[in-house]
Amino acid sequence: MTESHDAVDIIRTKRDGHALDDAQIDWVVDAYTRGAVADEQMAALAMAILIRGMDRREIARWTRAMIASGERMDFSSLSRPTSDKHSTGGVGDKITLPLAPLVAACGVAVPQLSGRGLGHTGGTLDKLESIPGWQASLSNEAMMEQLESVGAVVCAAGAGLAPADKKLYALRDVTGTVEAIPLIASSIMSKKIAEGTGSLVLDVKVGSGAFMKDLDDARELAATMVSLGEDAGVRTVALLTDMSTPLGLTAGNALEVRESVEVLAGGGPADVVDLTLALAREMLAGAGREDVDPVQRLADGSAMDVWKAMVSAQGGDPDASLPVARDTQVVRATDDGVLTRLDALGVGVAAWRLGAGRARQGEAVQAGAGVEMHAKPGDRVRAGDPLLTLHADTPERFERALAALEEAVEIGADAPQLRDVVIERVDAGT
Amino acid sequence: MTESHDAVDIIRTKRDGHALDDAQIDWVVDAYTRGAVADEQMAALAMAILIRGMDRREIARWTRAMIASGERMDFSSLSRPTSDKHSTGGVGDKITLPLAPLVAACGVAVPQLSGRGLGHTGGTLDKLESIPGWQASLSNEAMMEQLESVGAVVCAAGAGLAPADKKLYALRDVTGTVEAIPLIASSIMSKKIAEGTGSLVLDVKVGSGAFMKDLDDARELAATMVSLGEDAGVRTVALLTDMSTPLGLTAGNALEVRESVEVLAGGGPADVVDLTLALAREMLAGAGREDVDPVQRLADGSAMDVWKAMVSAQGGDPDASLPVARDTQVVRATDDGVLTRLDALGVGVAAWRLGAGRARQGEAVQAGAGVEMHAKPGDRVRAGDPLLTLHADTPERFERALAALEEAVEIGADAPQLRDVVIERVDAGT
Repeated sequence: MTESHDAVDIIRTKRDGHALDDAQIDWVVDAYTRGAVADEQMAALAMAILIRGMDRREIARWTRAMIASGERMDFSSLSRPTSDKHSTGGVGDKITLPLAPLVAACGVAVPQLSGRGLGHTGGTLDKLESIPGWQASLSNEAMMEQLESVGAVVCAAGAGLAPADKKLYALRDVTGTVEAIPLIASSIMSKKIAEGTGSLVLDVKVGSGAFMKDLDDARELAATMVSLGEDAGVRTVALLTDMSTPLGLTAGNALEVRESVEVLAGGGPADVVDLTLALAREMLAGAGREDVDPVQRLADGSAMDVWKAMVSAQGGDPDASLPVARDTQVVRATDDGVLTRLDALGVGVAAWRLGAGRARQGEAVQAGAGVEMHAKPGDRVRAGDPLLTLHADTPERFERALAALEEAVEIGADAPQLRDVVIERVDAGT
Repeated sequence: MTESHDAVDIIRTKRDGHALDDAQIDWVVDAYTRGAVADEQMAALAMAILIRGMDRREIARWTRAMIASGERMDFSSLSRPTSDKHSTGGVGDKITLPLAPLVAACGVAVPQLSGRGLGHTGGTLDKLESIPGWQASLSNEAMMEQLESVGAVVCAAGAGLAPADKKLYALRDVTGTVEAIPLIASSIMSKKIAEGTGSLVLDVKVGSGAFMKDLDDARELAATMVSLGEDAGVRTVALLTDMSTPLGLTAGNALEVRESVEVLAGGGPADVVDLTLALAREMLAGAGREDVDPVQRLADGSAMDVWKAMVSAQGGDPDASLPVARDTQVVRATDDGVLTRLDALGVGVAAWRLGAGRARQGEAVQAGAGVEMHAKPGDRVRAGDPLLTLHADTPERFERALAALEEAVEIGADAPQLRDVVIERVDAGT
């Protein structure tokens, strides 16, 4: 039996709606990583997995096989417990920036391996790279040292961690197979488990600007990931959070760094502060430090101190001026009334088209580009009031950004029903 | 919008169960043929098509796009009407060999572009290549000349005909997406329509040795192909025929040539003769020559004359001795009784393992290898009677061939219910 035959048997098994056994999963993930299973074979299998699904055992085994494809990190020699957070991605989701130093200021080390953005959701590394001098790449040793000395690291994952996931993610991106819950869950969790965090909080976004538009899908993804984490010995909880409207008042790289610094300085928009605190409390609880009050660490400036140390440790200047886009255009309210809708997807696509995001892996992003919001749903506005300021380096970008916003803004007579940013909590007992 | 984005949109459309529009189909087939859509993207799309299906309009458009990917042949200048036959493939299916010269002897030209075998079903070209000197490759001009002078050609399709299908078929073979009715139907029909035949008879096999195990699936495939042919102006009918047991008494290349020559000489097994005549009558009717009696053309030797001319015209010696395998092994009846089952798949896999077939495209096959049958279901046998003779060039092949036959032969007390080789007829009015 040649290897190619094994691959076709495995594809057919899933295609016909049957579960893959452990040996099939171990073989196909390993063979794909070393190139014995071709991209076109894995693409067909990924589509079959997307449509037919996988049961919990299959997802757990798939995750294990992806972890086994590379190295694992180990933070057990640190003097502090570790906790990490992962967000499934949203518009204006800068939460890692204030959160990591805040949790570190509470005595829990945060080893966050992060990614770059693709499409309409921004990436944490892209945001931090708008700080002059800041470097995303760290060796494992430098990461360990910074965790011990500063308490928080946000950096790019090295090539050695879950290489199967890297290869598979690039493939899914071009084959219409990104939206498979088993593959999303195993992709996220293989990296987080291999990263070696002691506990993990998942921020699963729901709404127009999120990957999951539907609450049931988000709940399923959250429950799947929580059980994968717990099975691997990582204390894991998930918050389902609202992504029908952007988080905070900015979507863009330098724009979001500025807003994050406002939060660390004790200010900032309420939704960003609320979600940062909710996630911080979960991370502290996961690390056994529920006794520490994060509100106080924001108020006393210690979170800001860690932020500055964290930026400096990676070559950045926390006091430098942030890049500003060359051109701006203001979108104004057309009527008097209440802002009833400011759609996250529309704002995200606008920011992307302004230059804040990339269409393909490897493209550069523009640090100053993005959308600044002057009102959020529920706010009263008058005709002529500025609603949004668009920032771009080249003025020809405005037209397509405005097109993305056409259906995104609604002004009505009555105040909309607003929901809390945290919708639901999912833990191992759920 | 880049081309890669279009591909992902198209994949997602089908993945989510929606129909592809004409422009999407035209674009993706063309872009795949010229390499702008990658193999992994087409693999994901093929899997989505297999699971989600395609409606009649989509299949018709897909077929048209595959035809448009290459050249079309035109036989309208011939002095005779044309008719072709396509079989979905079975075990012992040598019918093209007696059929093409028989129909030509009745005054209808047969332009058959044929293929090589893959897996347990044999290929017509492989069978003919066991005749010393015979060549499968002909230029379009040589094909045209032979059609005019001899009346029948069986040859390999040139690279110019439906290149999209060639590329897609090789991809489906390694990605578990062979079994998609829309892709099977469009693959077969794009080649037959591009080939330019005036009428077409489809032999859709049903049973263990066929691609379609199930009568309903076979009926759906037949109806789909008939409507594709009729829509393209090709008079098309299909016969659903039995493939639960092999056709005739041989499965193998030279073995089947020998049996075909017996039929052309007025003898041969009843099922092979019956199916050859049934298909000949359909081809004659399609070409408007239902007045000619094929039985007479077998009896008077004119079909044999065309066979010899056809073989000679392609460099073969119709009177040469055919290759014989170096070694044989006889399988004997273990009990007295009636042969109740001789499974087509078991015999096909045995012949394949003996060397008559190939596991991958491009491999050589052995001319003398195969299975000779001494009894068929319904025949009385006594313990010790020879049931099968296995032929192979190397004796180590017998063991795995015998393993394939283990469950394939059953002897019982009562005569089995036998069905006619032709199960059902499907035409445009069905």
